Amino acid sequence: MNKLWEKNFEVNAEIERFTVGRDREMDLYLAPYDVMGSMAHITMLESIGLLEADELKQLLAELKQIYAICQRGEFRIEDGVEDVHSQVELMLTRKLGDMGKKIHSGRSRNDQVLVDLKLFTRHQLMELADGVKVLFDELLAKSEQYKSVLMPGYTHLQVAMPSSFGLWFGAYAESLADDMLFLQAAYKMTNRNPLGSAAGYGSSFPLNRQMTTDLLGFDSMDYNVVYAQMGRGKMERNVAFAMATIAGTLAKMAFDACLFNSQNFSFVKLPKECTTGSSIMPHKKNPDVFELIRAKCNKIQALPQQVTLIMNNLPVGYFRDLQIIKEVFLPAFDELKDCLQMAAYIINKIEVREDILDNPMYDPMFSVEEVNRLAAAGMPFRDAYKKVGLDIEAGTFTPNKDIHHTHEGSIGNLCNDKIADLMQQVLGGFGFNRVTDAEKSLLENA
Amino acid sequence: MNKLWEKNFEVNAEIERFTVGRDREMDLYLAPYDVMGSMAHITMLESIGLLEADELKQLLAELKQIYAICQRGEFRIEDGVEDVHSQVELMLTRKLGDMGKKIHSGRSRNDQVLVDLKLFTRHQLMELADGVKVLFDELLAKSEQYKSVLMPGYTHLQVAMPSSFGLWFGAYAESLADDMLFLQAAYKMTNRNPLGSAAGYGSSFPLNRQMTTDLLGFDSMDYNVVYAQMGRGKMERNVAFAMATIAGTLAKMAFDACLFNSQNFSFVKLPKECTTGSSIMPHKKNPDVFELIRAKCNKIQALPQQVTLIMNNLPVGYFRDLQIIKEVFLPAFDELKDCLQMAAYIINKIEVREDILDNPMYDPMFSVEEVNRLAAAGMPFRDAYKKVGLDIEAGTFTPNKDIHHTHEGSIGNLCNDKIADLMQQVLGGFGFNRVTDAEKSLLENA
Amino acid sequence: MNKLWEKNFEVNAEIERFTVGRDREMDLYLAPYDVMGSMAHITMLESIGLLEADELKQLLAELKQIYAICQRGEFRIEDGVEDVHSQVELMLTRKLGDMGKKIHSGRSRNDQVLVDLKLFTRHQLMELADGVKVLFDELLAKSEQYKSVLMPGYTHLQVAMPSSFGLWFGAYAESLADDMLFLQAAYKMTNRNPLGSAAGYGSSFPLNRQMTTDLLGFDSMDYNVVYAQMGRGKMERNVAFAMATIAGTLAKMAFDACLFNSQNFSFVKLPKECTTGSSIMPHKKNPDVFELIRAKCNKIQALPQQVTLIMNNLPVGYFRDLQIIKEVFLPAFDELKDCLQMAAYIINKIEVREDILDNPMYDPMFSVEEVNRLAAAGMPFRDAYKKVGLDIEAGTFTPNKDIHHTHEGSIGNLCNDKIADLMQQVLGGFGFNRVTDAEKSLLENA
Amino acid sequence: MNKLWEKNFEVNAEIERFTVGRDREMDLYLAPYDVMGSMAHITMLESIGLLEADELKQLLAELKQIYAICQRGEFRIEDGVEDVHSQVELMLTRKLGDMGKKIHSGRSRNDQVLVDLKLFTRHQLMELADGVKVLFDELLAKSEQYKSVLMPGYTHLQVAMPSSFGLWFGAYAESLADDMLFLQAAYKMTNRNPLGSAAGYGSSFPLNRQMTTDLLGFDSMDYNVVYAQMGRGKMERNVAFAMATIAGTLAKMAFDACLFNSQNFSFVKLPKECTTGSSIMPHKKNPDVFELIRAKCNKIQALPQQVTLIMNNLPVGYFRDLQIIKEVFLPAFDELKDCLQMAAYIINKIEVREDILDNPMYDPMFSVEEVNRLAAAGMPFRDAYKKVGLDIEAGTFTPNKDIHHTHEGSIGNLCNDKIADLMQQVLGGFGFNRVTDAEKSLLENA
Repeated sequence: MNKLWEKNFEVNAEIERFTVGRDREMDLYLAPYDVMGSMAHITMLESIGLLEADELKQLLAELKQIYAICQRGEFRIEDGVEDVHSQVELMLTRKLGDMGKKIHSGRSRNDQVLVDLKLFTRHQLMELADGVKVLFDELLAKSEQYKSVLMPGYTHLQVAMPSSFGLWFGAYAESLADDMLFLQAAYKMTNRNPLGSAAGYGSSFPLNRQMTTDLLGFDSMDYNVVYAQMGRGKMERNVAFAMATIAGTLAKMAFDACLFNSQNFSFVKLPKECTTGSSIMPHKKNPDVFELIRAKCNKIQALPQQVTLIMNNLPVGYFRDLQIIKEVFLPAFDELKDCLQMAAYIINKIEVREDILDNPMYDPMFSVEEVNRLAAAGMPFRDAYKKVGLDIEAGTFTPNKDIHHTHEGSIGNLCNDKIADLMQQVLGGFGFNRVTDAEKSLLENA
Repeated sequence: MNKLWEKNFEVNAEIERFTVGRDREMDLYLAPYDVMGSMAHITMLESIGLLEADELKQLLAELKQIYAICQRGEFRIEDGVEDVHSQVELMLTRKLGDMGKKIHSGRSRNDQVLVDLKLFTRHQLMELADGVKVLFDELLAKSEQYKSVLMPGYTHLQVAMPSSFGLWFGAYAESLADDMLFLQAAYKMTNRNPLGSAAGYGSSFPLNRQMTTDLLGFDSMDYNVVYAQMGRGKMERNVAFAMATIAGTLAKMAFDACLFNSQNFSFVKLPKECTTGSSIMPHKKNPDVFELIRAKCNKIQALPQQVTLIMNNLPVGYFRDLQIIKEVFLPAFDELKDCLQMAAYIINKIEVREDILDNPMYDPMFSVEEVNRLAAAGMPFRDAYKKVGLDIEAGTFTPNKDIHHTHEGSIGNLCNDKIADLMQQVLGGFGFNRVTDAEKSLLENA
Repeated sequence: MNKLWEKNFEVNAEIERFTVGRDREMDLYLAPYDVMGSMAHITMLESIGLLEADELKQLLAELKQIYAICQRGEFRIEDGVEDVHSQVELMLTRKLGDMGKKIHSGRSRNDQVLVDLKLFTRHQLMELADGVKVLFDELLAKSEQYKSVLMPGYTHLQVAMPSSFGLWFGAYAESLADDMLFLQAAYKMTNRNPLGSAAGYGSSFPLNRQMTTDLLGFDSMDYNVVYAQMGRGKMERNVAFAMATIAGTLAKMAFDACLFNSQNFSFVKLPKECTTGSSIMPHKKNPDVFELIRAKCNKIQALPQQVTLIMNNLPVGYFRDLQIIKEVFLPAFDELKDCLQMAAYIINKIEVREDILDNPMYDPMFSVEEVNRLAAAGMPFRDAYKKVGLDIEAGTFTPNKDIHHTHEGSIGNLCNDKIADLMQQVLGGFGFNRVTDAEKSLLENA
Repeated sequence: MNKLWEKNFEVNAEIERFTVGRDREMDLYLAPYDVMGSMAHITMLESIGLLEADELKQLLAELKQIYAICQRGEFRIEDGVEDVHSQVELMLTRKLGDMGKKIHSGRSRNDQVLVDLKLFTRHQLMELADGVKVLFDELLAKSEQYKSVLMPGYTHLQVAMPSSFGLWFGAYAESLADDMLFLQAAYKMTNRNPLGSAAGYGSSFPLNRQMTTDLLGFDSMDYNVVYAQMGRGKMERNVAFAMATIAGTLAKMAFDACLFNSQNFSFVKLPKECTTGSSIMPHKKNPDVFELIRAKCNKIQALPQQVTLIMNNLPVGYFRDLQIIKEVFLPAFDELKDCLQMAAYIINKIEVREDILDNPMYDPMFSVEEVNRLAAAGMPFRDAYKKVGLDIEAGTFTPNKDIHHTHEGSIGNLCNDKIADLMQQVLGGFGFNRVTDAEKSLLENA
């Protein structure tokens, strides 16, 4: 390794490369939200007399143009421009001259990036909720479709009790409904307005933070300005956990499916386009898509700890360290949404084997049923138990595979409607409308 | 290392020691909840004809006795008894003979321990909510008390802007209000009834799961029986995360306090009984209690990942692996409650230094204020900026420390009432009453 | 939650309970090493004139007695005594009066506990190396015993290629040989002397650190006194990682064995005493011991991160935080040694099924072999490939299961002797003799 | 979210995008190593008669060209080409026709990517060792330069004892020497040859694995072919840990430097080009570069756990999951090398304040020295202790700042030469020459 300081001409370039890092790439995620945040901010500035009505009008119109550029996927950060904030300002000043710089009055980079991150993240959480719901619906549909198809239920990976595909699919649906509780907690924490906290200590400007809160559709402010800044890193960690619990559900389902896809189980048939094979081993159906879902979701399960390690044991106040969290946090949403989409696709297409239980290997799992049946018919429990045990040992046990489970949540009574209700209740508690209405209104009024 | 199999007589004892592990110690946490779960279960069994009314009455009375033993802290698992379930059964059969065994009809160890864990955990979450609220109140009180005392606000640990102790204390209060969102998500996930899922696949008994749900004050069932079992490990991980976010707030506050307690800052004075000193270095006040809070809370921040590592990539169904989660999960509540209590104590007693800003080292942080003031008074911004910069360089800058920040969440307008509202809203959403009413009723009817 | 400060009489007791924590329990692990460290320290003190020869003799004799108490497992920390250091001093002063206090000259609690941790840890690492070697030998023995028994080799959990139990057992042996590289790195980092670093900044006493280094059999000093203190936490983290890599190997082997123990594979038969069953399902053999090995080893895999979270982002110098690391670090060795012992026991007793490949489900995995055989016999590769593919599809493919793999590390040439050499090379590099000789000598000279 | 299966035309494209993921980007890291692995492989193939001498010659010449393309940074994976292996084959067949395909005889993608990863990683580890050494030398140089400059030594962040910049810089140097032990363990594990393991089960070809081991300069083989495959993921995790321990040292040093750069300490002056400031607050020197080093290194400290989560609890054999590890593992080396380079630059340029101890705030830390001095001069220790304590309380304590610490590793005897020896010993144990010689020879003979 050459020593950096022995190649003087490169030092500053190297330091700039090191400090800018992946920021210009990362900031593209934030661009439309940066524009939207500025629209609310200047609308408020005008209301407190820090901007002329005419200036506001021109700036809003121009910002709306830039927003449209973002929406078309054409927003770029030019060479030599450091970040999204500078790029937006540059585009404004090219059109409007010095007036373009006025959007920065009464805020700092710190609260500007905070509000960008909040707006970006809540949008992603909305999309995640949407993606979860699509998968949830597929799982419930498959649960209904295959509710009569029995499969072995395992404990310790040992054949234990009769189960059903209705139960298996439904279990993962219900798991998603629980995961949504954490997505909602993350959403509520996210949907609070940090704008106006400046560099983390507020300012002497008579800002109207309630106004930007309303304009941007936030549920409330992050009131305390020190806390508003403290939320950076903390929001990412907590949102990452909400993502991790969804990812955990997907990874587990993917693991099951890969196992059940093994020739040693042969319970499921994955869609051809989601497996890779071998022309010479036609029975080989590698479940690559589910393996990648599992791996990507396991990677996401490490995200909360990764964020924690970066931000932990830092005292109060902004540190440049927080920049690095963007690299691991911002791209994670696309990864998880991709996994949700692929999982929904496979679940929609998956087929199950209906004759699994013809294999006598699974007969012993009906033994408990048989004991209960004999007992219900009057034989003392211990005698029934003994008789069945002896029959199995003697190889004379003939399982009665006609299962009558009737209690809530059992093979014969899946309660999928109740599970759908649980999901609906959580979804109803988000209040996405406030956000979409506010954003629409903000853009229309520009 | 001797080879285990060369000392034959010990093998079985060693295997038993290995498999029982710390279970007998851990199960003590669960004892009263195991009893309560059994009371609900047998009440339901009687309702569906699997127990005589008279049997129910005797069993309930006896269970109530055992519950009282637990409450007195006198419940023990006797030598040679494997776990809490066996111990309770043993105590029942000593008094009631074979009737004592009837409490096990229609359930398995799997759903029995599931319901124990749920009842235990929701109780702990209630206590945590209580502990958080106590600390929250202290923080808000201190924020109000010291709202006029200024302190330096740092960015990059560089003196940056005026801040206040009102902001500093209040920030941690608001952080706790956000943390409670996750505690509530964890609570809602926890407060669902797994009883009736048996070994994870339900049973042919005509169980009335809604009845046990109501008797135990659960918000709903874990409907799908496969999911009910799948919740083990998942609940622990998600609850652990809710604990971790609280722990993160405490650890950060403790870090600040330890820093501000350094002679290089001397911002705060911790209660004498919470520091250790040195008779020969009278100015040395080691903040041991806050350091231990920080370390214990950092340990708790590792808990979600620890649980994840134990349960991840296991397929559907029960595994013995889950036993090990108890060792790290059950004792964590006491640790966090301890930290909350100690933190509340210190915050209640903490004193702050009111003359910090007399040190001219902090003067430059008023420069931004001064620029704004000159600008507000009519001087062009760039001129104001330049003048202040030159004054500082020349050493002639005289800071005006009379701060007028008025916007929401700033030094002069802390919005502590709004923050208290946020906390109250979350607290109101738990619905603890349902639980306490149900538990009371269950015990009174026994 | 009652407020601590409203029950004044309890405050100090509560604070003491909180700060002492589990220290009195944890220090029992360190007792014999604390005694040994003191023996070396005072021998050195005498050599530099800070202790009389006669004092040294009496103190050494008394310490030797205490060491014997430790060895008999009878060392206790009395009520009201804070830690192991105080208890040892108390025992000395009871016998020798004020002379007992002289063992503390020229050191502080900080370097005393550092040396205790080093001596304890290196001893544990020696035992771990021993335990790893026992398991390694069993794995190689089983690899040799079953080298001719074929089993399916999987990719993507799809039947892919012929493998053998010789390969399977041998792979885990070689994995352990690699793990030992990290155990050795951890050992070398551990086996350096921190004594003399005092509170982390050295002292004005003319200590002879090389002498204590030699007396205690350390490979070298932690020279820089600031680094000696900085090693606390760092050593634990790095040793924890060495444990984690061994644990990773065990967990993976346990996962395989649990899978292969499933009726859907039925590749292995675990020793009866290491499984739990069901009288009514005689084919159910729950692999509890291997599941617990897996879970405990997965818990250990979380240990490095746990330690990291506690110590990360703390500046230079001692903090009380480090106390908490003891709680998670010290007991982990027994857990891992237990797992190694149990794994070695099961591997010694495990039986494998020799007729697995009779199941035609596995026939396709011989297809690649067949293509190669035809190609070697002169048929163009593409034709051979096509022919085999068609035969399989038509169901007329008859696998030739007579495998001839001859290259290094393949079914027919396991290279177990080479793997044993790798292990032997690593073991040879530890230099345990220096330690055992030094410790023996120190005790004999007392 | 639209449902993927409702936009049929996109399904296959989406699945391909999902499965290919970032592989084409990641494989660029591996390209030169893929070429080198092929060179060794075909040289061996020729030796066992599976390739003609003339074919070998042509293929080697062509591969050498491709290697040169890689070295010039011009290697690209063309659109529609899946990975590096296919791209290399494509380039060969364009020039040499079907002969180009022969490089794949006797191996599979699995061992091909394994050997690529090994060659890449060992190269990175060599560069890391180099980067560590550069920083180490700077630290020792600064330690010598400033060995006479005293600074406060803290415990609990409380002023405690005299320390020196000689100690502070030297401590981090010694820390790096210990870290190198783990880098070496990682290197030794890495530098073993997996080639010939095919899909993880070897093959019927009479491969000469010792020959490729020698040609590529590996220390030995990964003998057992099942273990060779099992090493994927495991190598990454263990190498990641070796990186994490270096990163831990850097992060801690960066934390110290950021703290000491605060106006409240003002111990160090960082190079101007590595800080950002504020024209209006001329005393503000934000230590951005050190903050980013800290954050990036904390991110790297999460890497081992990230890898663990992806690979843990997977049974034996290849899974597609392993692909995802590349995304987090391959780019991490550049990040850590960057941090090492930046840290070395700053340490080279850093200046320290020589008059720190003029501030009377630090006087009490000389109290222990004074007690020892009085005691050495004959005053009974207790009396000396009492006198100094009283003097401090009375404000009449005049510290004698003339420190005489002489023992090994103390202020007056830093043992930097010994620390340099430790580093040299570890460096000597790598055996990098074998690798560089073999690689040179392989390329020259082509």
